[in-house]
Amino acid sequence: MTKESHFTERGSAEAVNARMGDDINPRLAEVMASLVRHLHAFAKDVDLSQDEWELAIDFLTRTGQICSEERQEFILLSDTLGFSMLVDAINNRRPSGATENTVFGPFHVDGAPIRKMGDNICFDGKGESCLYQGCVLDRAGVPIEGAIVDVWSDNADGYYDVQQPDVQPKFNNRGRFITGADGVYRFVGIKPVSYPIPDDGPVGKMLAALGRHPNRPAHLHFLVTAQGYQKIVTHIFDGKDKWLASDAVFGVKQSLIAPFEPVEGDTKWRADFDFVMCEM
Amino acid sequence: MTKESHFTERGSAEAVNARMGDDINPRLAEVMASLVRHLHAFAKDVDLSQDEWELAIDFLTRTGQICSEERQEFILLSDTLGFSMLVDAINNRRPSGATENTVFGPFHVDGAPIRKMGDNICFDGKGESCLYQGCVLDRAGVPIEGAIVDVWSDNADGYYDVQQPDVQPKFNNRGRFITGADGVYRFVGIKPVSYPIPDDGPVGKMLAALGRHPNRPAHLHFLVTAQGYQKIVTHIFDGKDKWLASDAVFGVKQSLIAPFEPVEGDTKWRADFDFVMCEM
Repeated sequence: MTKESHFTERGSAEAVNARMGDDINPRLAEVMASLVRHLHAFAKDVDLSQDEWELAIDFLTRTGQICSEERQEFILLSDTLGFSMLVDAINNRRPSGATENTVFGPFHVDGAPIRKMGDNICFDGKGESCLYQGCVLDRAGVPIEGAIVDVWSDNADGYYDVQQPDVQPKFNNRGRFITGADGVYRFVGIKPVSYPIPDDGPVGKMLAALGRHPNRPAHLHFLVTAQGYQKIVTHIFDGKDKWLASDAVFGVKQSLIAPFEPVEGDTKWRADFDFVMCEM
Repeated sequence: MTKESHFTERGSAEAVNARMGDDINPRLAEVMASLVRHLHAFAKDVDLSQDEWELAIDFLTRTGQICSEERQEFILLSDTLGFSMLVDAINNRRPSGATENTVFGPFHVDGAPIRKMGDNICFDGKGESCLYQGCVLDRAGVPIEGAIVDVWSDNADGYYDVQQPDVQPKFNNRGRFITGADGVYRFVGIKPVSYPIPDDGPVGKMLAALGRHPNRPAHLHFLVTAQGYQKIVTHIFDGKDKWLASDAVFGVKQSLIAPFEPVEGDTKWRADFDFVMCEM
């Protein structure tokens, strides 16, 4: 046992990381060593006080305790600190021209009905209807046949069907569309509306203390899959939304802003958006 | 709204931190900005995968959910990552020669009985008895009168009285001693024994995955206070303990290792240790 094996302020992270066993999962060792280095560097950078440490312990504990089957406050924390978007970005780097990813969100439902091209996916009669259409293409601009365009959005009151199972029809504002040889998808939905993330818990209090609002700009979710291609998890956003530059979860990317254009007739709006997929 | 206001992988931390309000607590802004920079740098350093992110969310959630009035798993996490010791070190930097701090731990009890010099604090008859004595001094070596030496330890089975309220006498292995003009303290306790931190929760699983054991080397806790001096929160350790170089919470410092020496008579051991206090 040498003196160096004990803890010192200067060598704190090294002391912790030196303790890891030799036979452990090498990837776990790599990730934990980096985490410890960054956590310790953070405390040193700001000279973290004992009171601040206690506040952090209390915040993390409350964040864990409010989690339930229906609520995941740690994901909300990750989202609001831009961490979810960062992990998504790291894992979905794509060449220029390919459709960018954004956060998946908690409201996707597997197995939404497969609908016919042009169908209306809004079943509660609320909201301003909007025609969505575009092409699913490869990077050379060739249409992809058999791509599944899975779409979901909140209703005009700002809630997803799964948040209001007793109020909204099942699969309201959801559906899957399978492209033909022309790669085209087309459906009628509503022009989406903005909504706040749940802000009555620790994360909401954190946002308030940081002078931030909890709102997400209006968006429509898409999950686009096709055999041989990388899946796309993304949104399209309304470029005129007041929260566009301040999405509480940092989901907005410039390339994902769709032109919502007013049109004449029963359908009030039209948004054209193509999806460009990368080969696996 | 400019393109720069949106999220990019490269500028991720800056995008998050730019979102903070102008009128918020400046210290909160400083701490959170550093935290976000380090968290994002961590994810980038290791190219954190989506699966690893999910595992982290699940780990933090389980850590929060196991917390209760009797158990604080996030403090255990902080302790086992060396973070508690680091925060203690940052907040208790002392000149050479002054007694060093170490972690406070969860087992201190306010208001332990004030005892007479030389009293025995062990009331369950277990363990090998040990005479503890030394001086409370200022940095010039002058004895401090009226210093309160508050001591607590586990019993010979490795449990504190508060962990076994139905088994151990109240205030077993606890007491406070007030120094006279000579600055001397003296009492009989037991030679402490090592024990594991609670390892049946997420933190125990983490330690196992990291190839680490949950044990703390044998130690006696001290809280030393005196008017006009900075309080000392520390342990003294048995230099022969098998876990000395691998304390699960990194509490050991070289200067806190006391000489436990065998002696003849009813008292089997003797440990001399002086406390050197810094003026406020």
